[in-house]
Amino acid sequence: MDSELRYHQTTGEWVLIAPKRGKRHNELKKGRTSKRKPSPVNTCPFENPQKNGNQVPYFWFPSDKSLKNWRIQVVPNKFPALKHGHTCTPQKKGGIYLVTQGVGYHDLVITRDHFRSFTDLSVREATDVLLAFQKRHREVALDRCVSYVSIYCNWGLTAGATVYHPHYQIIALPVIPASVGRSISFSADYRKKKKRCIHCDIIAKEKKDRKRIIFENGSVIAFVPFAAKEPFQINIFPKKHLPYFEESSKELLKHFAEVLQKILRSVRKRLSDPDYNFFIHTAPVRDKKKHGHYHWHLELVPKSNISAGFELGTGIEINPVFPEEAAKILRG
Amino acid sequence: MDSELRYHQTTGEWVLIAPKRGKRHNELKKGRTSKRKPSPVNTCPFENPQKNGNQVPYFWFPSDKSLKNWRIQVVPNKFPALKHGHTCTPQKKGGIYLVTQGVGYHDLVITRDHFRSFTDLSVREATDVLLAFQKRHREVALDRCVSYVSIYCNWGLTAGATVYHPHYQIIALPVIPASVGRSISFSADYRKKKKRCIHCDIIAKEKKDRKRIIFENGSVIAFVPFAAKEPFQINIFPKKHLPYFEESSKELLKHFAEVLQKILRSVRKRLSDPDYNFFIHTAPVRDKKKHGHYHWHLELVPKSNISAGFELGTGIEINPVFPEEAAKILRG
Repeated sequence: MDSELRYHQTTGEWVLIAPKRGKRHNELKKGRTSKRKPSPVNTCPFENPQKNGNQVPYFWFPSDKSLKNWRIQVVPNKFPALKHGHTCTPQKKGGIYLVTQGVGYHDLVITRDHFRSFTDLSVREATDVLLAFQKRHREVALDRCVSYVSIYCNWGLTAGATVYHPHYQIIALPVIPASVGRSISFSADYRKKKKRCIHCDIIAKEKKDRKRIIFENGSVIAFVPFAAKEPFQINIFPKKHLPYFEESSKELLKHFAEVLQKILRSVRKRLSDPDYNFFIHTAPVRDKKKHGHYHWHLELVPKSNISAGFELGTGIEINPVFPEEAAKILRG
Repeated sequence: MDSELRYHQTTGEWVLIAPKRGKRHNELKKGRTSKRKPSPVNTCPFENPQKNGNQVPYFWFPSDKSLKNWRIQVVPNKFPALKHGHTCTPQKKGGIYLVTQGVGYHDLVITRDHFRSFTDLSVREATDVLLAFQKRHREVALDRCVSYVSIYCNWGLTAGATVYHPHYQIIALPVIPASVGRSISFSADYRKKKKRCIHCDIIAKEKKDRKRIIFENGSVIAFVPFAAKEPFQINIFPKKHLPYFEESSKELLKHFAEVLQKILRSVRKRLSDPDYNFFIHTAPVRDKKKHGHYHWHLELVPKSNISAGFELGTGIEINPVFPEEAAKILRG
């Protein structure tokens, strides 16, 4: 099949879908066996985070019991990329250059079991992880210095996880990332023009085409995006229009956790257990009235391609797998 | 040192400089020894590209001699990401989605010597590589379907090079990449406001600060950008304002090749011979009068960080090495 350039209508970026590029697709699909091995429990820094020099958690679940019985705990990262400050520092100009202090939060969500990643938790535990994200998101959003909260999971060494023990990260930033800002603008422009949510329209289109959907239940849908930047990238959306992850109901999060787990099991089975990242895209924490057009979702990216000179130089990713083909493989 | 968010004034993106993130810096600086090993010459597909099923080159150097004596040849990639078409295909809408055929060029610039990468070529040979880029750029720009030409080098497996034998790639696209478009817009806005070139002002600021420059000669300057996205990222600029790489003089390219080689030697020595990518940023090939504000340059990115969930979710890279520190290390 000839290659195609597909336009990503919520970011303004083109993606090059070029299936003839050789073997990478098959490597990902078949050849790969994960080199991920559980690290020994006795030297694991997250078996007993407090014994290992971590602070007392902000909170833990089950919250009605002693910390000794924690199943999930949320603590500050010992090696934070940003640090909590008592004041919001202003942006400073040095001639043509602009800089601001790295003030914010960098927290960890740790689940107790060393051997069970998100995929293998019970639905209840998986839901609790999402609820912990939500609770911490709401807490850091109270800090007036915080503009945006990024919640993500790195699973496996090649996906950036330096500790094996299952954990998740939350970074609260004093700025809105440019790519988030652009995505918000695209969505706002669409709403202005069409009086509809661009993501709701994408979901409707996916339901009509039925070529890229992997799974859906009553309230949640998972599909390979039309202009997927990476092979087997998967987006998961609540079907109902909802700008804010942190305002989603417990009921919705339960359905969301079920779908995410189902998708992760499919990825593990069909793609030979790759490392992966997932992250949540939700609207910025300030000016909430201005962001009603947004629609929160989660993106899951199984690790595969190396970003090389072309991708670095143009921002255009080369994806060797047609999204329709990827969805077919993932449906099994 | 506390972390900083630095604004990249030609892309609108923030970069998080977070030196406390741990060992990655040292890993890159000291611990890494390259696992890059020359592949055997007798099975190398680029020792004799034509014997290996590649087409007759578009051209070769020295051009006055038979192909048998080639030192550099420029050929179509056997596994192209885009293919030359006889017509420019229009962009097609499928409901909300937009797509266009992957029409363009994907070419290889191969240097003859299996064991000498760009770093080890003579200055004359290195200059010839840049001249080959230029010549091929001019040729593909004649095709009215081409909007942008990306020229890059992947060196080493982790930088995306699947063949060891030194080579470079040229991809001609029917669209302008969004990130290039943004960079052009930022530069145009600055020119409009200040009546000056943003890159010329950055060069002046670097010469004033003298903290991030690694090397300069009369016509070319190399420095670690103030908001470097990756540790040890290096930008190399012609000092004179010049929008188009493809219109640079042979004299300038010779000076440019000298600086690029010097920088690559420094990277090899100071950072334990890492894999790397470099790529050229030049103005789009159409509407040349509209892009006089641009200033071509080359970006060199030694391979180090893994882009994990935070980077994927926000577009904000976490760079563990302060640019001033990186420049100091690279100056030796």
